[in-house]
Amino acid sequence: MNQIVEACQRFYLEDLQVGQRFTSDCCHMNEDRIKAFAAEFDPQPFHLDHAASRTTVFGGLAASGWHTAAVAMRLLVTGGLPLAHGIIGLGCELEWAKPTRPGDTLRVETEVLEVLPSRSKPNQGVVRVRSTTFNQDGESVQVFKGKVLGFRRQAT
Amino acid sequence: MNQIVEACQRFYLEDLQVGQRFTSDCCHMNEDRIKAFAAEFDPQPFHLDHAASRTTVFGGLAASGWHTAAVAMRLLVTGGLPLAHGIIGLGCELEWAKPTRPGDTLRVETEVLEVLPSRSKPNQGVVRVRSTTFNQDGESVQVFKGKVLGFRRQAT
Repeated sequence: MNQIVEACQRFYLEDLQVGQRFTSDCCHMNEDRIKAFAAEFDPQPFHLDHAASRTTVFGGLAASGWHTAAVAMRLLVTGGLPLAHGIIGLGCELEWAKPTRPGDTLRVETEVLEVLPSRSKPNQGVVRVRSTTFNQDGESVQVFKGKVLGFRRQAT
Repeated sequence: MNQIVEACQRFYLEDLQVGQRFTSDCCHMNEDRIKAFAAEFDPQPFHLDHAASRTTVFGGLAASGWHTAAVAMRLLVTGGLPLAHGIIGLGCELEWAKPTRPGDTLRVETEVLEVLPSRSKPNQGVVRVRSTTFNQDGESVQVFKGKVLGFRRQAT
């Protein structure tokens, strides 16, 4: 079941069910932005320079995995995971299955794995999700399995 | 044992041992940069706006967890984890124990947890590390447990 989300619809803890799926918009990975992100946060040759990247295990220019992760977050926040009160992560597992390349177009598909109401905080709970980031060829470039906060409708 | 690393010293797979520790430089978390990162990758009120953040679970402006992760990567790449041929992550677990706040100064301490030579690729191996990011008060803001590639000295 792929959830059809109306604009502005936001999901509270009691609206979420195991197996529920959400799909994000797309994001184009611009080469200049890949290099700029790398220059600031991950200044390694395979993220910065075509020629230098060819002799590395990447075999060509690749985005930093942290850039892929950050773009996936943007896609979740801008509609890919429409949680009421936002997306607040507690922790996660990340796997980078394939590099993200300049010119790739990414989208994120999310599945709800578990919904755990809090015993101590009646307004809150933890939602376990798996968010897979795909490129334009349907190849997985990142799998994020994370715990995020969920809020009940009556939460202030 | 905290490794004293000479400038330009780079560690190959055979130089790494379980329990070896490395310490990064520091990075100051500027409020403007926190907001700019959030505007691009994690546009949520608690990362963008002081007033709006006060009524959230953060209780004040907080950096995106992905910003903390990206800065930790910069600190690893710029000396905090001096691996020969760079830091190439295969996957990781991340936990955000506390928010990073504007004005925080972060540093990363890394411990080698496991060194696993590859059976199929004689020049390579996998290194499991735990990198804890601390703020200026010695509080952990992020724990990264990751698998990164290691290369043998004879690798071309």
